[in-house]
Amino acid sequence: MSDATQRTEISNLGEFGLIKRLSEKITVTQPTTIKGIGDDAAVLAKRDKLTVVTTDMLVEGVHFDLMYVPLKHLGYKSIVVNLSDVCAMNAVPTQVTVAIALSNRFSLEAVEELYDGMRAACKRYNVDLVGGDTTTSLKGLIICVTAIGEVEDGKQVYRSTANEGDLLCVTGDLGSAYLGLQMLEREKKIFLEDPNIKPDLENQQYIIGRQLKPEPRTDIVKWFADNNVLPTSMIDISDGLSSETLHLCDQSNLGCDVLEEKIPIADEARQQAFKFNFDPTLCALSGGEDYELLFTIKPEDEEKFKGSLDVTIIGKMTAKGSEPTLITRKGNRHKLIAQGWNAFGNEPTAS
Amino acid sequence: MSDATQRTEISNLGEFGLIKRLSEKITVTQPTTIKGIGDDAAVLAKRDKLTVVTTDMLVEGVHFDLMYVPLKHLGYKSIVVNLSDVCAMNAVPTQVTVAIALSNRFSLEAVEELYDGMRAACKRYNVDLVGGDTTTSLKGLIICVTAIGEVEDGKQVYRSTANEGDLLCVTGDLGSAYLGLQMLEREKKIFLEDPNIKPDLENQQYIIGRQLKPEPRTDIVKWFADNNVLPTSMIDISDGLSSETLHLCDQSNLGCDVLEEKIPIADEARQQAFKFNFDPTLCALSGGEDYELLFTIKPEDEEKFKGSLDVTIIGKMTAKGSEPTLITRKGNRHKLIAQGWNAFGNEPTAS
Repeated sequence: MSDATQRTEISNLGEFGLIKRLSEKITVTQPTTIKGIGDDAAVLAKRDKLTVVTTDMLVEGVHFDLMYVPLKHLGYKSIVVNLSDVCAMNAVPTQVTVAIALSNRFSLEAVEELYDGMRAACKRYNVDLVGGDTTTSLKGLIICVTAIGEVEDGKQVYRSTANEGDLLCVTGDLGSAYLGLQMLEREKKIFLEDPNIKPDLENQQYIIGRQLKPEPRTDIVKWFADNNVLPTSMIDISDGLSSETLHLCDQSNLGCDVLEEKIPIADEARQQAFKFNFDPTLCALSGGEDYELLFTIKPEDEEKFKGSLDVTIIGKMTAKGSEPTLITRKGNRHKLIAQGWNAFGNEPTAS
Repeated sequence: MSDATQRTEISNLGEFGLIKRLSEKITVTQPTTIKGIGDDAAVLAKRDKLTVVTTDMLVEGVHFDLMYVPLKHLGYKSIVVNLSDVCAMNAVPTQVTVAIALSNRFSLEAVEELYDGMRAACKRYNVDLVGGDTTTSLKGLIICVTAIGEVEDGKQVYRSTANEGDLLCVTGDLGSAYLGLQMLEREKKIFLEDPNIKPDLENQQYIIGRQLKPEPRTDIVKWFADNNVLPTSMIDISDGLSSETLHLCDQSNLGCDVLEEKIPIADEARQQAFKFNFDPTLCALSGGEDYELLFTIKPEDEEKFKGSLDVTIIGKMTAKGSEPTLITRKGNRHKLIAQGWNAFGNEPTAS
């Protein structure tokens, strides 16, 4: 869990001791943060923008496995998944609060690793950690992050406002995070069967990195502002392309045509999918955890997207009543089905 | 856990089905709520006030026991404890987000009961539930609430700003919530030994109500505004009077004298303490969960507090370097020690 050799029991510090220890390293830099950790609540300045708020809970054994997820990466990712939701509103993240519950299996050193990762993400994305809660769990680690961001009035982007004929776009590439997870799961299985076998993760840095250390697309939100582009609808891809596309269709009351050949998949992911005997497209459609942005634009904005920006137009929104559809390379039309990861159901079946 | 006769498995609904079902009943009324549940993040309007943010996590088996806590009460309380933190900043709560993780032991009906309680608290305190997360836990129920509030710039009150000579005040009465908990724990023990014995909770409505259904002191925050009183420091009493008084002293860099005879304790609590062979003062000092406000005022404001308001002056702040002190009825001076409930240590010893 931690390769730190020292082990300090949290019970020796107590809750206030732990909070004090963790807060010492935390600095605030956002102009809108008036008061951070250390009082009954954080205090944020007046803003001439709208405020967005989002919350996500990560549960050990459900959302992460500490056998192969380093605590520092987990801390980083727990912040990122929330920043990604802020980006999906076309907003800029400014503050987070963090609540954690942990069993006595976790030492102070382990918690510090977790917070090191959180602080790294906060620093990288210029976000202040302004408050939270630390408490005991009966089992495992639970992390709940709330992220706050800001967006100019009128520039917030919802899921429900796409129009017929709008182009459907996606940032980056899809499916890698899911394949990274499959790699890590496979290595875990092998390790459990024989701890002496060295993990074979060579050449898999990309897909494993996509699983362990996703990044929120704050750069795209900035690009929208710089280039005066306002998406007509937007969502972030946490559950897989299918599931998120269906949300946009459902909430905008439209259908869509998605072209399989346009779905961006990294070479590393495609190769690994073939090795696993998975369909790469299915990994992109159902895999989830890529934390890319899925959005629609007016057709007349298409020109602006030509160039070096890693945005791909994968389809278009179709009339109300028409079905969300995947058009295969061979030209067949399939109804788009959500097989995304479901917190209350089964894992996606990728083969 | 629930006396509903129906049991609908959440796995049959899926995460999105559950969210849809829960959100149907939720309405937003706050003028600052632009977009509530249903997108990647909630959107809040520009405000000409400061924003306060606070988060608390409640864990089954650590913070509550569903053997005697009805889910509706738990939902209510999970909102209240956060609103209380907002009040402690002299702010008015406006929005909450709710993240829950639950094991498959919970049915849809159980979750609806929990949310009924949350909605009741939101309605009573004019707060909008604007977002959140629902997910699976491997064990038990975990609730994480983030509350947002607003306060006029300059009217926010911190823990660190008390001055020597300020009067230390407390709202309501203390110790009852702890005694209510002891009652419930006793009845649970009796029930587990012999399920046929009827619970003997007669005449204990007050203290049990204080434990199961605390209320945030939004009325006091309103009174401050109406009467143009600005406390010099403030904190809410979640961990017990001792612990919170020490926070004010520590963060304001002062000592204090607390008069035992002034500590407000309800007759019902005092009587129950004697029955349990507990010291009522110790229950007030260390019991916690009363969610009253502890604050300091300038001596010249004392006059304003005379009347029907349930605020008691229990002592005063003393010079830097002097010790936080309890002065007993007999005039003895004792160093004030935090024995409050500690999430990482033991429960308070009340006898």
